[in-house]
Amino acid sequence: MSVEANPNVLGIVGGGQLGRMITLAAKPMGFEVVVVDPGPNSPAAQVGAEQIVAPLDDPDGLAELAERTDVITAEIEHIGTEVLLALQAEGAIARPDPAAIALIKDKLYQKSHLAGHGLPVADFLRIDGPGSLATAKTHLGGIIVKARTGGFDGRGNLVLGEGQGWADVQRFFGPDAELYAEEIVPFRHELAVVAAKDVRGRVLTYPVVETFQHDNICHTVEAPANIGSHTARVATEIAREVVDGYVGAGIYAVELFVDEYDRILVNEVAPRVHNSGHWTIEGAETSQFANAVRAVMGLPLGSTELRTPTCMVNIIGERNGPVELRGLPDALAIRGVAVHLYGKSPTRQQRKMGHVTATALTIQEARAAAEHARSLITI
Amino acid sequence: MSVEANPNVLGIVGGGQLGRMITLAAKPMGFEVVVVDPGPNSPAAQVGAEQIVAPLDDPDGLAELAERTDVITAEIEHIGTEVLLALQAEGAIARPDPAAIALIKDKLYQKSHLAGHGLPVADFLRIDGPGSLATAKTHLGGIIVKARTGGFDGRGNLVLGEGQGWADVQRFFGPDAELYAEEIVPFRHELAVVAAKDVRGRVLTYPVVETFQHDNICHTVEAPANIGSHTARVATEIAREVVDGYVGAGIYAVELFVDEYDRILVNEVAPRVHNSGHWTIEGAETSQFANAVRAVMGLPLGSTELRTPTCMVNIIGERNGPVELRGLPDALAIRGVAVHLYGKSPTRQQRKMGHVTATALTIQEARAAAEHARSLITI
Repeated sequence: MSVEANPNVLGIVGGGQLGRMITLAAKPMGFEVVVVDPGPNSPAAQVGAEQIVAPLDDPDGLAELAERTDVITAEIEHIGTEVLLALQAEGAIARPDPAAIALIKDKLYQKSHLAGHGLPVADFLRIDGPGSLATAKTHLGGIIVKARTGGFDGRGNLVLGEGQGWADVQRFFGPDAELYAEEIVPFRHELAVVAAKDVRGRVLTYPVVETFQHDNICHTVEAPANIGSHTARVATEIAREVVDGYVGAGIYAVELFVDEYDRILVNEVAPRVHNSGHWTIEGAETSQFANAVRAVMGLPLGSTELRTPTCMVNIIGERNGPVELRGLPDALAIRGVAVHLYGKSPTRQQRKMGHVTATALTIQEARAAAEHARSLITI
Repeated sequence: MSVEANPNVLGIVGGGQLGRMITLAAKPMGFEVVVVDPGPNSPAAQVGAEQIVAPLDDPDGLAELAERTDVITAEIEHIGTEVLLALQAEGAIARPDPAAIALIKDKLYQKSHLAGHGLPVADFLRIDGPGSLATAKTHLGGIIVKARTGGFDGRGNLVLGEGQGWADVQRFFGPDAELYAEEIVPFRHELAVVAAKDVRGRVLTYPVVETFQHDNICHTVEAPANIGSHTARVATEIAREVVDGYVGAGIYAVELFVDEYDRILVNEVAPRVHNSGHWTIEGAETSQFANAVRAVMGLPLGSTELRTPTCMVNIIGERNGPVELRGLPDALAIRGVAVHLYGKSPTRQQRKMGHVTATALTIQEARAAAEHARSLITI
């Protein structure tokens, strides 16, 4: 299938919940896993991954990862892609291609790349001072200012108020941030399409899901999305084109907006397993994690078809302190509910501690069950 | 739910493939796992269980297990139940009850217990010399001689030929074996029902499956069994009665025969997750492993309903030597196929190294896919 004969050890940059769930999928297939993560006893290490304790951009840590593994992937795009590119030049196999990760982690490059491929995106402009900010406000109308790199889960986004200007932007982002401005799109739905690409470039897409955010963090995912079949088809086609534009096997998640005129715009891309795909563990024929392993280890992809309507609700920390799990028995008493905890400690406000999934005959029932189960759990 | 407040650590006697798959189910629910197993780096330890390296009947090892965990269960019935009973007397929580395990591990007690509860079993007699053997041959007709304890996967069974007598029995089993004789039942189907019992004694049964053995080792499992609904209902009722007869939460597997007159007989019971239930990972709404964790940790059971027809084929070692996995990409290229490897090394003839599962719209398609996939793999 690929240049490496019989790869046996998977390396992951990052050992958080995504690395954990990749590890849980990789072990039954017979693979060993090594992760790089700065925190000892990471969520991935708790399920049998060996861990190199080092920052995600640490050249020595990543070199050791390349040394000890056959294929490297990443659970996060905010990583030292230069180091990965250098290791790749020396013969390491990294999937997706570090160049694709670099293209995605800088959101301005990402937008330019998508627009350059003729894909529909909200208007955007680079800003670097009062002049370009004023141009953006005039040209784009209501704008959101975003950091080009490092922002996720809403960190690094500023919706600019009527009377706000460059001083406010600098106060929010600091003096040295690299920024761009994006037109605010009033949207009707936020959708996501998770896609898997194998080493031959074949792409399989999961069903379109609808995502619901609280405080800019993905909170609830409904699979399938409650949208018309035409919208679903167009969203899937756009996502496929997006993924075709990046080099390298792996999972890609494409976030989309449906605006008030039913136009579909690409919002963001992630070159990795994604919160909008956690539902696939129970709800799809092959989970995004199993397909991540298959893709990067040079194996054929598994079916991405829906098994049954499924709703996922995140368990997000609501306080700071030691973990004190409550309510698991009550949550699991609800038909169709599974609970996934990430082994993180302590609890912190806004920290993703786990998620609840519910399967049912309809997405409405699944959502009701998942939300009820989530409401019973404190951590 | 149970006497222990918020149990957090699960102890397992045995860290083989069953302990491994229990661990893979326990970790996402947030539980820590400790196993006792004599072989370092056991299959369970490879997926994040902590391991006490000790024989399964080692009093110190089991005492340490009780010390470090909240609830103890077992992946095998051939264990030191006396030690578990002693630990239980000192306050340790063991599920199922060690008394149930003791009742099951001695197959003569098991048979007597079942017959005493009015459950249909093949005729049997204890034998301890030429006299009782002759009585058994006269009384039962064709017989199979079995060791009362320690036999599994066909080890410890002797089908007695026409001209064979006590000398042959002693040659096969050694002079000190405790034995019984059982009527040979010409059977049409071998069935199994896996059941889960929660701490309140509520029992949920999985669909009846048909099992196919080669060399006395479970080889292929079809879920659901290709039998009439009446037979399935009776088999399920019998299995439920069997499980009602044992004390303690956990998984029980009930093996049954359907004879040439469509009578159903109980063959054997196992007080643990079972090879005939591996298909539930993909094919049931909740896997037997997830329900094992739920049951023994005092949580409500998940639905045991069939998701889709599923066939499981074991990957059994065919030679002795280091593991050399071949054919994984070809196997995974088949629609609906998942491969589970147990991380065992070396390969040995008759050693269970992994299993293949295939899901499909019909059990016939599932079986064809699973067998084809299995045929492509060497290990």
